[in-house]
Amino acid sequence: MRTVLGALLALALCGPAAAQALVEKQVFAAGDYRTRAGATIPNVRVGYQIAGKLNAAGDNAVLINHFFSGNAQAWGRYVEGGPVGYWDAIIGPGRAIDTDKFFVVASDSLVNLNVPDSRTTTTGPASVDPGTGKPYGMRFPVVSMRDFIEVQKKLLDGLGVKRLAMVGGASMGAMQTMEWAAAYPAMIDRVMTVIGAEIDPWMIAWLDVWEAPIRLDPAWRNGDYYGGEPPVRGLAEALKIITLQSRDPEWAATLGRGPASGEDPAQTAAGRFAIEKWLDDASAARAKTSDANSLLYLARANQLFLNEYPSQAAALERSPQRWLVLPSLNDRVFLIENMRAMVATLEKQGKRVSTADLVGPLGHLNGVVGMGAHAARVAAFLAE
Amino acid sequence: MRTVLGALLALALCGPAAAQALVEKQVFAAGDYRTRAGATIPNVRVGYQIAGKLNAAGDNAVLINHFFSGNAQAWGRYVEGGPVGYWDAIIGPGRAIDTDKFFVVASDSLVNLNVPDSRTTTTGPASVDPGTGKPYGMRFPVVSMRDFIEVQKKLLDGLGVKRLAMVGGASMGAMQTMEWAAAYPAMIDRVMTVIGAEIDPWMIAWLDVWEAPIRLDPAWRNGDYYGGEPPVRGLAEALKIITLQSRDPEWAATLGRGPASGEDPAQTAAGRFAIEKWLDDASAARAKTSDANSLLYLARANQLFLNEYPSQAAALERSPQRWLVLPSLNDRVFLIENMRAMVATLEKQGKRVSTADLVGPLGHLNGVVGMGAHAARVAAFLAE
Repeated sequence: MRTVLGALLALALCGPAAAQALVEKQVFAAGDYRTRAGATIPNVRVGYQIAGKLNAAGDNAVLINHFFSGNAQAWGRYVEGGPVGYWDAIIGPGRAIDTDKFFVVASDSLVNLNVPDSRTTTTGPASVDPGTGKPYGMRFPVVSMRDFIEVQKKLLDGLGVKRLAMVGGASMGAMQTMEWAAAYPAMIDRVMTVIGAEIDPWMIAWLDVWEAPIRLDPAWRNGDYYGGEPPVRGLAEALKIITLQSRDPEWAATLGRGPASGEDPAQTAAGRFAIEKWLDDASAARAKTSDANSLLYLARANQLFLNEYPSQAAALERSPQRWLVLPSLNDRVFLIENMRAMVATLEKQGKRVSTADLVGPLGHLNGVVGMGAHAARVAAFLAE
Repeated sequence: MRTVLGALLALALCGPAAAQALVEKQVFAAGDYRTRAGATIPNVRVGYQIAGKLNAAGDNAVLINHFFSGNAQAWGRYVEGGPVGYWDAIIGPGRAIDTDKFFVVASDSLVNLNVPDSRTTTTGPASVDPGTGKPYGMRFPVVSMRDFIEVQKKLLDGLGVKRLAMVGGASMGAMQTMEWAAAYPAMIDRVMTVIGAEIDPWMIAWLDVWEAPIRLDPAWRNGDYYGGEPPVRGLAEALKIITLQSRDPEWAATLGRGPASGEDPAQTAAGRFAIEKWLDDASAARAKTSDANSLLYLARANQLFLNEYPSQAAALERSPQRWLVLPSLNDRVFLIENMRAMVATLEKQGKRVSTADLVGPLGHLNGVVGMGAHAARVAAFLAE
């Protein structure tokens, strides 16, 4: 635990950006896990990080769930000068989700995307199947989003958490949050969903569109590419669709309608526009830290969102009373009208819902990168 | 030309659906064409159809431009019982675009998508290069949307058309219409754009996303698949993205969140949801009547929309005074806010703009299938 003196010293020496201690990515051994669909995954491991201190009653915990391509790094740095967690603006000592008061937990999803990152140790299709000594590939069992929650529940049990003062997350993290709210309402005080709502058939189809480039890449080899050349082209194209849909025309406008430097798309079929080049480079870089099969399993888990309930409204009905819902106005993944509809459903069910719109040029991503502007709202929600 | 008696007879015998005579798809030999970028395409041919009669002054013509995956069949049937043109509800004798008054022309775009359709004879990458005796493939020169218009101009000149009472179209047809309005404003009386607006960098990037599955399919072979197996998987995936983006969540909801018949996506990674199966089937069927290289060339022509003008506003500034703009409220291709912005630009430039929103469950496609509801508006615009 960090001391006040240490914090002041760090502040004095390094300024606010370095005020937080480094975070350690840890591994939880969850044992054998039986999926909701009935398959057994031996020796499941899940990566996680914590901050703050759990009180004696075990009821001051906050669980943060990550978005589709994310991982447990919701706050802090693993090494000096390294990248900072995506919600660092609202998680830390004295911040909205105050680690001086709350015990904050964030875990990798099962079948996490960031397999090539050495800190991603969570079990998935790239893991070695102890039964064969080879990576599972597409022989890994299908997992649902509820399975993510069940593995997290084992982690929380292992950490001694009895109650969650809040569970929250952005995008797929909001979806996991809704699964939590339906599965374990009695142990949750508050639910915070950011840029995430119910998933509809339209979105089920888009998830399939995200997957298609991987299946088309001959290097995918039905998922048996481990140890050989991974399907980086297909994976990059998949990540390109996700990147584009997670942003907005306002962002795109900054790149203009012109060609990339040295390219002439009016003359040559292979010529690239500036925005194409930006997306080529961004998605190629992302592909290096991502795993294609894991993307397919993540997409399926999203498609199976709340699949154990007769309807999504029925799942929401089971949830705790207090909600904070933060949609992004120009979201092209979770359309604003769907997020409004979810708020209306919750209110009709008698829940107490606070809501505010995220505004910014980045569309869906406003909920990942723009949370600092809503820190006071999050703090107030936790103080309710 | 059909007689009134003939029309009454047809009506009496067959009912309104068969009231129009069969349409003949014709071929125009445009000669050698030099592209705006400076390449020469020998012996360009373009498919087209006409209805009504051109008057002596040659000034009662209406030109209809088609959408991305469409062709010249804007109205009528080629054979008894065959499919009817997409805007048949508003084009014909006594209809909004009255072929008893107007000489209506519709042509295939250069590089038209529907190559396997024997009535599609328009020159493109699947055509034989007379210089080599083999299909062009990706050696076909890049063409811009302005090139589409220049080839159509040759067709209109060949038909003796001096003035256009109206030029109009849906989606890419609206874009071609805007190219026409900027290129030949002095010969156009009215401009009608349906579900189409300016193209922005966001859309340039989406066009690249549409293309990616084709380039990933090993059967594509850099475009040299003619005579062998075409890249139907990649082409189908490309068409799937276009189909999905051209529709709307309201439509998707009719297919539900459940699995396809006999499938169990909660158990098997290859299992399909109902909406995935619908899109699989629809896009596989569409792939059989489409050509992959032509899709790539069409996408590029769209990316090069109005590329000869300093800005799209500058192109609109050059256009005729009278506009009818019909956006679709839930359009996911041409976002409603962009269409509103185009109307605002036109009004600021002093144009006379009528506008009304298309409403329906099909998103972008409301402008292709839902025009019957706006027939009176189109007729009034033509009577102005």
